[in-house]
Amino acid sequence: MSPSVPNTPLDYAAAGVDYSKIDPLKILAQQAARSTQGNLAAHGVTEIPASRGESAYVMEVGGVLIASITECLGTKALVADAVRAITGRTHYDSIAQDTIAMAVNDLITVGATPLSVHAYWSAGGSEWFADEARMRDLVNGWQRACDVCKVSWGGGETPALAGVVEAGRIDLAASSVGVIPSRDRLTLGDKMADGDAIVLLASSGIHANGVSLARKLAERLPEGYASKLSDGRLYGEAVLDATTLYVPVTEALFAAGIVPHYSANITGHGWRKIMRHPTDFTYRIHTLPSVPPVLSFMQQHAAIDDREAYGSLNMGAGFALYVAADRADEVVRIAESLGVPAWVAGRVEAGPKQVVIEPLSLTYTADELHLRL
Amino acid sequence: MSPSVPNTPLDYAAAGVDYSKIDPLKILAQQAARSTQGNLAAHGVTEIPASRGESAYVMEVGGVLIASITECLGTKALVADAVRAITGRTHYDSIAQDTIAMAVNDLITVGATPLSVHAYWSAGGSEWFADEARMRDLVNGWQRACDVCKVSWGGGETPALAGVVEAGRIDLAASSVGVIPSRDRLTLGDKMADGDAIVLLASSGIHANGVSLARKLAERLPEGYASKLSDGRLYGEAVLDATTLYVPVTEALFAAGIVPHYSANITGHGWRKIMRHPTDFTYRIHTLPSVPPVLSFMQQHAAIDDREAYGSLNMGAGFALYVAADRADEVVRIAESLGVPAWVAGRVEAGPKQVVIEPLSLTYTADELHLRL
Repeated sequence: MSPSVPNTPLDYAAAGVDYSKIDPLKILAQQAARSTQGNLAAHGVTEIPASRGESAYVMEVGGVLIASITECLGTKALVADAVRAITGRTHYDSIAQDTIAMAVNDLITVGATPLSVHAYWSAGGSEWFADEARMRDLVNGWQRACDVCKVSWGGGETPALAGVVEAGRIDLAASSVGVIPSRDRLTLGDKMADGDAIVLLASSGIHANGVSLARKLAERLPEGYASKLSDGRLYGEAVLDATTLYVPVTEALFAAGIVPHYSANITGHGWRKIMRHPTDFTYRIHTLPSVPPVLSFMQQHAAIDDREAYGSLNMGAGFALYVAADRADEVVRIAESLGVPAWVAGRVEAGPKQVVIEPLSLTYTADELHLRL
Repeated sequence: MSPSVPNTPLDYAAAGVDYSKIDPLKILAQQAARSTQGNLAAHGVTEIPASRGESAYVMEVGGVLIASITECLGTKALVADAVRAITGRTHYDSIAQDTIAMAVNDLITVGATPLSVHAYWSAGGSEWFADEARMRDLVNGWQRACDVCKVSWGGGETPALAGVVEAGRIDLAASSVGVIPSRDRLTLGDKMADGDAIVLLASSGIHANGVSLARKLAERLPEGYASKLSDGRLYGEAVLDATTLYVPVTEALFAAGIVPHYSANITGHGWRKIMRHPTDFTYRIHTLPSVPPVLSFMQQHAAIDDREAYGSLNMGAGFALYVAADRADEVVRIAESLGVPAWVAGRVEAGPKQVVIEPLSLTYTADELHLRL
């Protein structure tokens, strides 16, 4: 570590996101939301109750299972705005892909094929849209990500909200609708069993999670986003590597007749998300990926230990698939044939809810992840 | 008009929304979006092409017509924040209803029954959520609006985005998924004909449209939001009257076997939206509603003429239904039985695209409304 960098550990509270203030709202909102499910009876529609608390909401409409979701990018566009001054590129093509990834990578966890995406691009003023290079990158990146995921871009909103969104900034989100073609494909965790294999899919970098930390770190690095990583790339550019779209992988699995027993998108809470499943299992990890240089750099310069790093960042693993052990190698092959590195990382065991990362002698227990009421 | 109020006309450009800067993006995005429709073929799904350019996107999935949309509130929450200091109430229960109305009132225009809503509540920092009164009002208002519309609140996002959203503010949006139970119910305008009746449904006030103007006006009124209207209410309180939810009306029409030939949600562009239909018709209006006091007040004190007022605000009409002339009285009765004032306001005629408001000797022509490529 450079001696000019203070080695006070940076963490999320220091980076400005205080979940203790948001969680009471989330609980209140989840309770109120649950109480509205009876409204569907009037329409001959039923919800799949187990989808509440999972990453997408599922209803059965006229015999068809429809999944839907709304997700936000977060603050990653602020990094693009800062790095543009260094690289001369807007990076909004990557930002567009990140935003779509936030929605579709969650939607596929329940077994859905994403069909459509709506854009929500809420700018701090109409002048945001007058920057033609940035606007074209955003539109082209959005279109390309839709094409990769084979979804239709159905529409969207492009409001100019001076006074709500900061001047010169944009609040980006995506909503997505998908279909689950049969009940067999519905992936809410009921199929998971002792002995299942955990296949992890590689991340491309930080994705859109840990961005507050990345920004805070840039502030205290002497060269900020222009700092060099071990592979020679700029820190800021590497932070902006677009989030991997995992839709082609899950679609290829379905085509091969493989339905995961459960899936988890590894975003906030990092590897603690591996124990996302609603009931109790122990997740024993024996094989780690190589960590993308940008994440190693962040861990080192933010001076956080492995417990903090793996508990909040993806550390090279962007998506977890829990599959029958005898299909695990095939899952790896299919993912890699699509350019997504993958590996059999561990196994599911009967036991208390915990993630045991053996190579690091780290254990996260159930009380370290609260996602449901 | 009070002599202390400057009588310079206020308009949208002065109020900070410059559509000339947003429109090129909209066109680029619409072209790119349209180019992604072919992606659906891989899934055995088709879009309803005529739904592009309408207020919601429609796909046929396994024989079921699914409509979806994402809509934002705009800047109305800024009014609530300011008026709270006067009334001591947060008004976020109304703000919640406004946000849901933006989505569902658009979704129903294509003939859909809204089924689910996702919340997008993007705050300027985690401390936004620590204000318990405001948080409860937002949650309760959201739940109540879902109950009125008989939709399920399927989930949502509550990010804290310091640096993107202004400190102390919140960017609110809603996405909604609905079903159109049969092809007959699909309302994209192909049934509209010369001789159809135009039934207008009353608005409750400004709804969420014209808010920039309302805020700009408050700045130059000596008593701001505490100004008194002709009915004795406070200007700020009246601005915050929640948007009418029109879902119960369209649902009751469907139940009575009445399918509108077309529908238009009267939001931005005010009464110019009456000519929203994709092809050319003349819309001859013979009967005006009484104008809500808050809108009369705005017109008077912003010193805007009828052309500007009716061309940008709803002026008492929040939703337009175009129905067979022999069902028009029944439509009015059904709406009024649900507490929504309604009236047969005019008729559709073969002729050039224009809105002719006879009582005001006002005509808006096709070149005054650009919604499509």
